[in-house]
Amino acid sequence: MSDIQFDARGRLRHLLTLEGIGRQTLTALLDRADALRVMPGEAPRRQTWLAGRTVANLFFEPSTRTRASFELAARRLGADVLNLDMQSSSTVKGESLEDTLYTLEAMNVDVFVVRHKDEGVPTLLAMHAAPHVHVLNAGEAHLSHPTQGLLDVFTIRRHKKDISQLSVAIVGDIKHSRVARSVVRGLVTLGARDIRLAGPRSLLPKAGEMKGELFTDADKAVAGADVVMMLRIQKERMQKSSVPTVAAYFKRYGLDRRRLRLAKPGAIVMHPGPMNRGIEIAPDVADGPQSVIREQVTNGVAVRMAVLQGFYT
Amino acid sequence: MSDIQFDARGRLRHLLTLEGIGRQTLTALLDRADALRVMPGEAPRRQTWLAGRTVANLFFEPSTRTRASFELAARRLGADVLNLDMQSSSTVKGESLEDTLYTLEAMNVDVFVVRHKDEGVPTLLAMHAAPHVHVLNAGEAHLSHPTQGLLDVFTIRRHKKDISQLSVAIVGDIKHSRVARSVVRGLVTLGARDIRLAGPRSLLPKAGEMKGELFTDADKAVAGADVVMMLRIQKERMQKSSVPTVAAYFKRYGLDRRRLRLAKPGAIVMHPGPMNRGIEIAPDVADGPQSVIREQVTNGVAVRMAVLQGFYT
Amino acid sequence: MSDIQFDARGRLRHLLTLEGIGRQTLTALLDRADALRVMPGEAPRRQTWLAGRTVANLFFEPSTRTRASFELAARRLGADVLNLDMQSSSTVKGESLEDTLYTLEAMNVDVFVVRHKDEGVPTLLAMHAAPHVHVLNAGEAHLSHPTQGLLDVFTIRRHKKDISQLSVAIVGDIKHSRVARSVVRGLVTLGARDIRLAGPRSLLPKAGEMKGELFTDADKAVAGADVVMMLRIQKERMQKSSVPTVAAYFKRYGLDRRRLRLAKPGAIVMHPGPMNRGIEIAPDVADGPQSVIREQVTNGVAVRMAVLQGFYT
Repeated sequence: MSDIQFDARGRLRHLLTLEGIGRQTLTALLDRADALRVMPGEAPRRQTWLAGRTVANLFFEPSTRTRASFELAARRLGADVLNLDMQSSSTVKGESLEDTLYTLEAMNVDVFVVRHKDEGVPTLLAMHAAPHVHVLNAGEAHLSHPTQGLLDVFTIRRHKKDISQLSVAIVGDIKHSRVARSVVRGLVTLGARDIRLAGPRSLLPKAGEMKGELFTDADKAVAGADVVMMLRIQKERMQKSSVPTVAAYFKRYGLDRRRLRLAKPGAIVMHPGPMNRGIEIAPDVADGPQSVIREQVTNGVAVRMAVLQGFYT
Repeated sequence: MSDIQFDARGRLRHLLTLEGIGRQTLTALLDRADALRVMPGEAPRRQTWLAGRTVANLFFEPSTRTRASFELAARRLGADVLNLDMQSSSTVKGESLEDTLYTLEAMNVDVFVVRHKDEGVPTLLAMHAAPHVHVLNAGEAHLSHPTQGLLDVFTIRRHKKDISQLSVAIVGDIKHSRVARSVVRGLVTLGARDIRLAGPRSLLPKAGEMKGELFTDADKAVAGADVVMMLRIQKERMQKSSVPTVAAYFKRYGLDRRRLRLAKPGAIVMHPGPMNRGIEIAPDVADGPQSVIREQVTNGVAVRMAVLQGFYT
Repeated sequence: MSDIQFDARGRLRHLLTLEGIGRQTLTALLDRADALRVMPGEAPRRQTWLAGRTVANLFFEPSTRTRASFELAARRLGADVLNLDMQSSSTVKGESLEDTLYTLEAMNVDVFVVRHKDEGVPTLLAMHAAPHVHVLNAGEAHLSHPTQGLLDVFTIRRHKKDISQLSVAIVGDIKHSRVARSVVRGLVTLGARDIRLAGPRSLLPKAGEMKGELFTDADKAVAGADVVMMLRIQKERMQKSSVPTVAAYFKRYGLDRRRLRLAKPGAIVMHPGPMNRGIEIAPDVADGPQSVIREQVTNGVAVRMAVLQGFYT
């Protein structure tokens, strides 16, 4: 499954998952993202790496944040971007996914950015893509969200130099989280050894499914951590869990100042967004000095630019 | 509330309302719009004032006309435009408005164009915006629609030189009209003294709420006017008013040729659109020689360009 | 009706239908498309024929494929493209189609690409358009889809030199197909004499309505054909026809290898998309060596570019 991500010369051709992407490839990608990063308000630098190329956003799940991030990344590299509303599209009329791919390829679309609630869709498209075409997974079922994983390890690397020495706590609905799966994969590749996954028992993955130690006690997971990453909790899943009310969830798993003080001094606070303030994170922590949540968003554009640029260098 | 619109050097930083914008600032803005105006069919002049900047359209209310006008204004100044469907966005997933702002800022969005049915949303965003970020109100509740007010006074100024000597009649559902509020504010700033607001009693503002004399008799309001501005009437509001049928409304408040003859010779006819032909305006008046309705639309792009350009000069 | 398509100098000003477009005009257009055609994966060539021009997509019917094709064609000629969601637009608020046209013209929209389920909408817009404005029909009721007709004859011309000597079989729901009507018109203009229209009796046009011989037996229609064009069948229409089940329809009208062998050796297989694999066409035929279905899509961008470029040369 991961082999399909590389071309004959071993270069990244699709980004479907962080599985199978080695430390050197990952590090080179993060280094390129460093060079492409622009802080909000800075004079923008126009790039032309993708001039004349067309990037299509195929979002079968609605998304504002991720779609916008990919769109801006592509445009800032000079690409044309085609936004396709896949809810009202030909697939609704019975066209197969492959035929949608073939059709857009035939219009000279060069890169497909795909989000889908079903497992395997990005891989299916990559398997059928023409040799010059690139597929980017922008969120696949509960399984994979590789550019989110990249932006997370990129953000951690900017703040905490030696990832192999870090303790990283991820708290929330781990079981259904493609974000958690991707960031854990990235952390492991970069040598992280102490990863803690905390949440209500029914929202934890099966033992051994993911690298990391499982916790139902958030205090224990956060204690001494260098990085505390909070995940969004869906109300319906919370209600079916062992901690069914917002107040109880916030008390047991939410990140407030008391709980954050259990982490290492200088620990950073992360969240992939969109945040439920007051449910999984206290507003003063989200906006506090240890939060790098907004920086994650800025870094998201940079890593997406780095991936796209890598296809054309 | 209006102070937030200006930066420390007294330059316009956000455009939330025409309240608090003085005659000199307003006049300078209209002068810039004059220079930027391009007539339909004219060879377009590409500008680069906003090259590399990103303008996000945040329309929480659907809009074709205003969204398109802002999009074209921004693009013709060289900006990238990001259209966000705020109906299916993260705010639906429980994200706060401020967090949506912070997220897009973190992606290097520089200008936010916002339309919302609730009072205070543009101001809220402006209060939380980063120092380099600009917020443009594209329609706020029944209260404010400043670029519409600008394009209206711009259009009047092009046709009628001395605004202080003019009689301006505005006819329709004044009470719920953000357009009326904004144009009245602009007219007052430019020295207009004879403003007449006409409509069914239940659709007039409270006495003293807006500058201008209230009329329930449209003929009296239009008599001797230099400018007759018709407002769109929503069917549901008409039906609850004292003039509940289309035929009766058109007879009492619609602008037909007979009523227009009561105005000054050479009076201009305006409408913010979209028009209900045969309800608030007769087709032959809408398309007649005194109508400047289509020119208003052309001027709308010019004033929006002038506002955007002003942020980057 | 067709006269409106030409300006005073006899040049194509709108593209509403292939009716009334003579052989010379058609051939010149196809020749230009040849020059503009870019194969998928080829380095794109940026054109600037439409630099500074604005093309608006007015799709009153949802469409992914055709909308994307027009959008890419326009952008690759340097135009700005405005996508308008006509489902949630001012027309919903009671604005007339003409007023929507006037409004967008006033914003300096230069070209309107229109799709509508009702007959006459593109012509109505063309009749009211300003002299410098161009209207392109992107699908009108069951009547006309001229750029699809163009891309079809363009594709046939690339594979089969002398169109007057060809036998072309079109199979499926002819009665409701704007695609069939447009391609037949284009073929007749280029001299085709043997056109066969096949489908269940209730899905055939009235005798004499379209050029071509009517068949209810698909085998007879396909026998000896140089071109076999399959049409998409809507489930609801199939169910009301004399061949109401998918299995029966595929057996009687679907194109499988057996039926294709009845055609001439080297016959090409076409389909306007989106395809219902297994209903009107077998997957191995759709993907087989005689299929030019994906090439049709590539050619679609080229002919749309040729039409747009023609307006500005």
